[in-house]
Amino acid sequence: MKQAGLSVREDAVGNIYGRWDGSEQGLPVVATGSHIDAIPFSGKYDGVVGVLGAIEAINVLRRSGFQPKRPLEVIMFTSEEPTRFGISCLGSRLLAGSETLVNTLKKAADAQNVSFFDAATSAGYNLGPDDLSNLVLEEGSYSAFVELHIEQGPLLEEEGLSIGIVTAIAAPASIKVEFEGNGGHAGAVLMPKRNDAGLAAAELALAVERHVLESGSIDTVGTVGILELHPGAINSIPSKSHIEIDIRDIDEKRRNGVIEKVHQSAINIAKNRGVTLSEFNIINQDPPASSDKAVIDAMEFATKQLNLSHKFMISRAYHDSLFMARKSPMGMIFIPCYKGYSHKPEEYASTEDISNGVKVLALTLAKLSLE
Amino acid sequence: MKQAGLSVREDAVGNIYGRWDGSEQGLPVVATGSHIDAIPFSGKYDGVVGVLGAIEAINVLRRSGFQPKRPLEVIMFTSEEPTRFGISCLGSRLLAGSETLVNTLKKAADAQNVSFFDAATSAGYNLGPDDLSNLVLEEGSYSAFVELHIEQGPLLEEEGLSIGIVTAIAAPASIKVEFEGNGGHAGAVLMPKRNDAGLAAAELALAVERHVLESGSIDTVGTVGILELHPGAINSIPSKSHIEIDIRDIDEKRRNGVIEKVHQSAINIAKNRGVTLSEFNIINQDPPASSDKAVIDAMEFATKQLNLSHKFMISRAYHDSLFMARKSPMGMIFIPCYKGYSHKPEEYASTEDISNGVKVLALTLAKLSLE
Repeated sequence: MKQAGLSVREDAVGNIYGRWDGSEQGLPVVATGSHIDAIPFSGKYDGVVGVLGAIEAINVLRRSGFQPKRPLEVIMFTSEEPTRFGISCLGSRLLAGSETLVNTLKKAADAQNVSFFDAATSAGYNLGPDDLSNLVLEEGSYSAFVELHIEQGPLLEEEGLSIGIVTAIAAPASIKVEFEGNGGHAGAVLMPKRNDAGLAAAELALAVERHVLESGSIDTVGTVGILELHPGAINSIPSKSHIEIDIRDIDEKRRNGVIEKVHQSAINIAKNRGVTLSEFNIINQDPPASSDKAVIDAMEFATKQLNLSHKFMISRAYHDSLFMARKSPMGMIFIPCYKGYSHKPEEYASTEDISNGVKVLALTLAKLSLE
Repeated sequence: MKQAGLSVREDAVGNIYGRWDGSEQGLPVVATGSHIDAIPFSGKYDGVVGVLGAIEAINVLRRSGFQPKRPLEVIMFTSEEPTRFGISCLGSRLLAGSETLVNTLKKAADAQNVSFFDAATSAGYNLGPDDLSNLVLEEGSYSAFVELHIEQGPLLEEEGLSIGIVTAIAAPASIKVEFEGNGGHAGAVLMPKRNDAGLAAAELALAVERHVLESGSIDTVGTVGILELHPGAINSIPSKSHIEIDIRDIDEKRRNGVIEKVHQSAINIAKNRGVTLSEFNIINQDPPASSDKAVIDAMEFATKQLNLSHKFMISRAYHDSLFMARKSPMGMIFIPCYKGYSHKPEEYASTEDISNGVKVLALTLAKLSLE
């Protein structure tokens, strides 16, 4: 960011901000950015395009001799993926402000039982529990936030379009569930004497799929991406199971209805199998976010100026923008990606599509910074 | 073993033999023994009672001034549990002789992709692929093998009995299955576009239970103790799943019928979900073993001499005895264990029950060594 002539600062949790001052003092900031962390066995475009693309958009504006009126800012958010502590969009969530999140982090530990604060110290951050609440953005400090991102879905590619203008971000929720049974030897414990925590988890995974499909809407999705058995030996009946569930919808109420059904299924499965539902913890249950009209207009203006084909669309994946929307007018620019692949090594976006996205971002930022 | 006055040798894979020579030269050996390895998060009686108990039985016979006619031998078998390479009873299987096993071991690797032979080298063994076939016991070299073991089931405790005389060992089988789907982002890929390898695994785990119960026999058991998802992130649709299945029965044909149904289910699930059944590998599919009449008679004689209550019973767990039975007349002595718990930390057998088991073993060995 420094090479792009930005003045750089880092906050207490590792969000990094690069600022280009505007010609007028005291105006709210126009910001853009994304993240560079990734889940295991992932691709290299998710997030990264929106950080490097933002820096390049600033370069483009500088090269063109442009001078912003409002400050322009590039933000690289910390820990967008929920890999280590099971909490997604850590950086932007803290900027949006959430007492629940702050309380969760005070108790959070990773799979090796390292606390969030010990992990922060190991990573070189000097972070105490009381610092978290100080990160919240002041109301009105940002006049716009725009994020460039690969679509992570197949629609733009299928329809041969260059740009997606995001009008809303679907409402995500994530849930941790644990069952506990009696375990025992796989040969010696007869079937009627079993309380198999692993089969309870298998049933619940299928129930998630069933309840999602029962919603009748193509916009409801549910996934069990984590399912772990303890002790995890072929000749041992699972005595514990742990599953993590992701449920999303553009309709918050419908999504919450699915969560309620999944909870009821977990209770029933535990009862029928004689296992204990020792945890059913809704880690986050966020509302959807709508893009701001003025930001949408700026993105559409930029796309038309550049003569690029486009469509208005919903983001089914969520992003740091979902949380920035709580503190700032928000918009997102999508570019096509190969077969809609994401969160796997085959993830790919062409240089041409990335270049188009950067141009639209640059022009959108320019327009918003002059308003 | 040396402290018990036995002459000790170790073979190429780590089976350890302690020999007490008999008064007559050239007679086949009467042997006893078990294993001391354990699965993760396990107890400390499974196997261990049969090794330390065997050494103590020898001590008892020496203290009493007994002199065997046939040689007496204590065997501590290597790697009874399938923890590292997915192959149970490695030591006794090799003694029984199996070309299939030898070929499997030549390709076997652990979860960290360390080959069996590299692992053996790291553990200090000088073992080449050609050494495996040399381990096979000569026909007629053992006249009896007796193993002392905790029951790993609840029957002796429930019925208040001291000793179980095992008449047969149930037939075990273990199977590795892998499904491969397309993976993708948990938000962006809509439900109809999914090929979820994790849900295929969940369905198969439940199908194992269903097919086992359909057998209609209390003696059929099936377990999915291992179920792993890749990449294992909450916001990523599983692109691969791996499950390991254990199926046992005292009736080999009925067990093989269940395996065939599970295989058919795996094929159907893969087809319905549009995932690939990339592996359905029957790792082992052993026949059951019957105890030898003369060994049963010796165990019953010993139990009655000691005035201990007993019953004849089937071993639903399998043991090194299952494989020793292929090369030697075989029998097993069971003692009660707390609530039938095994393969978990609560596993427990009382000093009194262990002591009874050791006495029965000593007297059984004495009788068999004089025949």
